[in-house]
Formats: sequence, C-alpha cells, structure tokens
Amino acid sequence: MELNITHSTEEETRRDFDVIIIGAGASGFSAAIYAVRSGLSAIILDKSVSGGLTAEAPLVENYLGFKAIPGVDLAREFANHASEYAPINEYTEVYSIKKGAEKFTVETNKGNYTGSSVIVATGTTHKHLNVPGEKEYYGKGVSYCSTCDGYLYKDRKVVVIGGGNSGAIAAISMSEYTSEMRILEFMPRYMCEEAYINTIRNRKIPYLMNSQVLEIVGNGKKVTEVRYKNRETGKEDVVETDGVFIYVGLLPQTGFLKDSGVNLNDRGYINVDQKGRTSVNGIYASGDVTGTEAQIATAVGDGCRVSMTLYSDLLKNGKR
Amino acid sequence: MELNITHSTEEETRRDFDVIIIGAGASGFSAAIYAVRSGLSAIILDKSVSGGLTAEAPLVENYLGFKAIPGVDLAREFANHASEYAPINEYTEVYSIKKGAEKFTVETNKGNYTGSSVIVATGTTHKHLNVPGEKEYYGKGVSYCSTCDGYLYKDRKVVVIGGGNSGAIAAISMSEYTSEMRILEFMPRYMCEEAYINTIRNRKIPYLMNSQVLEIVGNGKKVTEVRYKNRETGKEDVVETDGVFIYVGLLPQTGFLKDSGVNLNDRGYINVDQKGRTSVNGIYASGDVTGTEAQIATAVGDGCRVSMTLYSDLLKNGKR
Repeated sequence: MELNITHSTEEETRRDFDVIIIGAGASGFSAAIYAVRSGLSAIILDKSVSGGLTAEAPLVENYLGFKAIPGVDLAREFANHASEYAPINEYTEVYSIKKGAEKFTVETNKGNYTGSSVIVATGTTHKHLNVPGEKEYYGKGVSYCSTCDGYLYKDRKVVVIGGGNSGAIAAISMSEYTSEMRILEFMPRYMCEEAYINTIRNRKIPYLMNSQVLEIVGNGKKVTEVRYKNRETGKEDVVETDGVFIYVGLLPQTGFLKDSGVNLNDRGYINVDQKGRTSVNGIYASGDVTGTEAQIATAVGDGCRVSMTLYSDLLKNGKR
Repeated sequence: MELNITHSTEEETRRDFDVIIIGAGASGFSAAIYAVRSGLSAIILDKSVSGGLTAEAPLVENYLGFKAIPGVDLAREFANHASEYAPINEYTEVYSIKKGAEKFTVETNKGNYTGSSVIVATGTTHKHLNVPGEKEYYGKGVSYCSTCDGYLYKDRKVVVIGGGNSGAIAAISMSEYTSEMRILEFMPRYMCEEAYINTIRNRKIPYLMNSQVLEIVGNGKKVTEVRYKNRETGKEDVVETDGVFIYVGLLPQTGFLKDSGVNLNDRGYINVDQKGRTSVNGIYASGDVTGTEAQIATAVGDGCRVSMTLYSDLLKNGKR
C-alpha cells in the first residue's frame, strides 16, 4: 500500500522533530496520534510502504469496532488517520540511532533526522524456512503474503507452510478461491486458535501435522511441488502445487539498534518496561517489536501508552 | 445506549460460561472477542447499559481507524461487534464473586452465574464535588455527562467544572451550541492536552484557574449560578448559568470485589501484573479499572491481552 499524502515543502524538508517514530504500522500510527495531540511534533519513518503487518492480514475481525475488514483496507484507514497528525516518510530506512548531548540523530538512506525522543515501532518480519528452492522460487510461486499474492492462485493449488494463526488465516482466506488448499505443520498438533481449527475442519482443509518441508521443487520457471517428510514415520512425500505460502514465524526488526545501547532479549525483541521505556533514556518502543501478543489491538494500545508515557516523562523532566 | 440484541432462549437462560466478563465497555468487549475466538464461551454483564465511558465521549478522534466519531456511535459499533461473540446482559449488577472448588459464583441482581474464570472490566465512574446544591440540583441543571445532557443547553449558559481532558472535551463540544461557556479549574494551570488548550483559546472559552467551587445555587427548581472562590486572591465570585457539568475525576468500580480476595491499590484500582492477572488465580482485570491511561486504545489493547493470557493460562494448566 503506498500513500499519496501531500506534504508542504516545509514538512518535506524538515529534519528536526520532538519525536521520531520508526515504523509505519498500527503501533507507530497510534503513537503518532497521541504524541501530536499532546502538542509534540512527530514524523513517521518506514523503510518500506506504510501499513506494517496489518496490511498483510487477509481479513481482520478482532480489532474492536471493525467486524470484518481486509487488512489492506484497515491499514489504509490507519495511515489516513495518522497522516492527519504526522508526515509518513516511506522508503526511509533507518541505519542507526546516535545519542548526542541534546538530541538523537537518526541516520537513514535519505539523510539524518534529529529528535529529542525516539519511538521504535518497527514490528516484525517473516521468518524463512531456509530450504532448497525457497529463494530460487520467491516470486515464482513462493510468497510470504497471502493478501499480496493470494489471488494470483485463483482456481489453482496452494500449500501453506506453518499452521499457526497467521498460516491458518492465510489458508482459510485463500481457500475461498483456490482449487486445492492444504496446510503443512511441523508440530504434532494444531497450532492455531480454536476458531480457525473449526473453520479448517468445516472447509475440509487438510492440516498435515508432523510435516517437515525438505524442498520447494520447480521446473526452473515456477514451483511445481513441495517435498516433505512425516517426522513421526520418516516417510517422504510430495504434494503438487502452484503456490507455496510460508508462515513460519516472525523476526523483530531491530538490526539498526546494534550500537544504540538499547537492550534486546535473547530473541532479538526490545526489552521495555510496562510503559514502553527501553534501557536508553529517551528511546521508547511499542508494538510487535517488543515481543507482545502481535495483535493489532495491543499494538494500538501500546502505541497510545508509549506516547502518553513519553509526554509525561518530558513534563516530569521539565522539558515541556 | 440500549442494545436490541436478540438472544436465543438457551442463551438467555444459560448461567454457566468459561468466562464471565463484568463490564460492557471497550475493554470487556475486546476481551469477549478474543476469549470466544479462542474457543471459550463468555458472557458480558453490566449493571447499566452497555458502552461504558466510550458512550459518553462527545467525539473520539484518537482511537486508530476512526478519524472522528461521536462516542455514542463508536460505543454502538463496539457493542455490535462484541455481541456477535458473546451475549451482553444489561442491567445486571454484580454483588460479589465467590471462589468455589471448581468455579467462581458471580452473584447479581438477576441471579447467579458460574464461570471458570472472571474478567473484571468495570471501568470507572465520575467523582462528585460534594458541595451544597450538587445533589439537590442533579438533573435540574447539574450533570456529569455532556453527551447525555449537553444539548438541553442549546443557546443557554453552561459552566464546566474541572479542566482536565474530559472537562475540556465536554466544554469544547458543548460550546458548539451554548450561548456562553466557561471552565472552572481548581489548579493554577491548564490540566488538559495542548490540542484542547489550543481549541479552548481559539474559541475564547474562559478557563478560570485557581477556582474552588463553593456552592451550586438554584431557585429551588433549577440551577441559577455557581459560587466559587479564587484560591490565590481569596476573592469570591458567582457566575450565572443554566447548566453545570462536573468533570473532576473518576472512581474505579470495585466495590463488589470487597470479599473476593482481589487486591486493590490505595486509590481503589485493581492491582494486576503486566498481563492482567489479579492476586486471585482465575480472576483477571483490564481497562480503566486497573488504573491505566483511561484511553479507549489501551482499554481495547488490554482487553485483547487479558483474554490471550487467560487462554494460555488455561492451556498451561491443562484445562483446555
């Protein structure tokens, strides 16, 4: 999703803000609204397009107020809402955050920004399987985003790898229009919410447990099958398919924090206190990158909370 | 706001659920959606009508996804959404929660309910000024809810007592149609967000700091004026008015927890861990009643979080 937001020249060239928000997803958006409504200036930077993982959800049914809305539409509502408060600079990748005497310098591929405070809301990205064929056939049958690519497989065969909530949702939503759908799950049990299990059963989508993917096979031009092993019996098998959608987990986006002094936990998520403060005064974090429930609702709530905390910290420190 | 939700006879008479959710506001609604999507059965009880404080907000602009929506409309969206997952029993006042061997018994004015778990999401209610005239003229000029009663004062004079965010929002929204509006604030400074300060200034709404209300004066039938003292100069003054809207703070709704074993803090809010667990195994709490930021966003996020925690606690305890 790319936004067409018109900013004034002043905004386009402005480089100094009270708060630099890194990550244009649900949490960063909510943080921006609250920061600006407190009287702070803010900018939102994202290395790619805005929307975050919300934009990749086929259908969102659990964010209070929206009974059922495609993720890409909800993400657009979110971005439109937030952009009334702060500019959203897409394709702006942050390389590092450096603490100066007064301000933080945020280095990006589009030059430096300075801010008194920083909120990291970069979320997570998809893990890879790391099997033969995965890289080779990426974009030629292999995908990590059913919302983006699912409809290319109308009346065709699709395998979803990974039967957690994300994989289940992807499989369920694509099964509306694919000719065949199945789920390969590594673990020996259902890994998704009961609501999804019921739907999977009702729709008779095979959910093959104990399945370890060995290779994504193609004819050089496109994917033709997935080779996998039953971890219990050791028996290998193949399933013919046109598409392979990989949902095997998430990686927090924290690489650029390497020399920032911000403490991460052993899985790479940012350690924060209950209010979103990191180990560095003036740097805050919220949303999926802090290792929370990875839900839109919590991302939005924590984005609100982190900006209210940031503002009250400024007040307490006599900086407003 | 009263809902017209048709429940089956089975639902109406059903008394045992996996989760009893007390409080039909933003947090309880979000908790219900997540609990039921996890495969749990749930019911929502409220001593009054559903909607909570969301329904009293004149205009909500800071809940991500809704640029600007009257609180009463947003509350209706919320209730409609939640009611697809769980019945909402209005006018059902909880008297106590008793822990049994297997289940909790929740005593109400409409009989007992039993549940394996309880989520308390009862929120807060408005504090009183406790000055002469306040009780006497309640409903005769005195109100705690601008959304409910504001429009009765079209082309008339109104005083809002308390200049925090809630009072500021009430004053701003009513100033659209009143003939005169002013705000009396006890403290010697602005107590609301800068966004509201700007609007108050733009609209030239007097914001009288250091004002201690002494009495709400009437003619026996209705309010005629407010008598107050300047705390700095000691000088008393009166302001003629038709309506008095009181916004001086919130009280957590925790009276029914007296003998439950649930620990409260010194302000009466429920002590919870980061995930919404109270001091009693099986009783959880979320939203304003836990003393959080009192925002819709955090109430919704914490409602999601508490149900995910509850479900994972059940799994860990081998109860699902």
